[in-house]
Amino acid sequence: MEDIVSIFGYLAAILTTLSFLPQAIKTIREKNTEGISFIMYGMFTAGVLLWLIYGLFIKDIPIIVANLITLILALTILFLKMKYSGRGTKIK
Amino acid sequence: MEDIVSIFGYLAAILTTLSFLPQAIKTIREKNTEGISFIMYGMFTAGVLLWLIYGLFIKDIPIIVANLITLILALTILFLKMKYSGRGTKIK
Repeated sequence: MEDIVSIFGYLAAILTTLSFLPQAIKTIREKNTEGISFIMYGMFTAGVLLWLIYGLFIKDIPIIVANLITLILALTILFLKMKYSGRGTKIK
Repeated sequence: MEDIVSIFGYLAAILTTLSFLPQAIKTIREKNTEGISFIMYGMFTAGVLLWLIYGLFIKDIPIIVANLITLILALTILFLKMKYSGRGTKIK
């Protein structure tokens, strides 16, 4: 039973971490960030950074790894949002 | 020291959970989901649902509360993405 519970936890971590990859790829390709909330990615990136610091403090490898990957992806999306915002819909 | 570490964890959870609120508000208001990745919100919602199940299994209140709030917000964004996708840029 404990193994099944752990599998749920690992699957959850993998899905929520890797979910930002298709968003980053889409944004890099399409250069369209109109529908994306700057405040969301600002808050989210700050939160993930704090999760990473928390993971380092408590020396929890899954928290460190998951949040390091998410931080890189969220920072990419945040950077592209700042780069393309206010420039109309699509940039070639 | 342990208190400071806990504060980092709580702040991290609050930021990453509530970050989806400005995105949901923006999407409800602007009805523009062009830049948002459907695959991201599909994966993310599934992941958050698994986090919630995991939290219920291990009876961890912070995991349950944070992921219940995130699930409602992520489901809202996913639903709006499905509703408005493929309809051009902006719908009044």
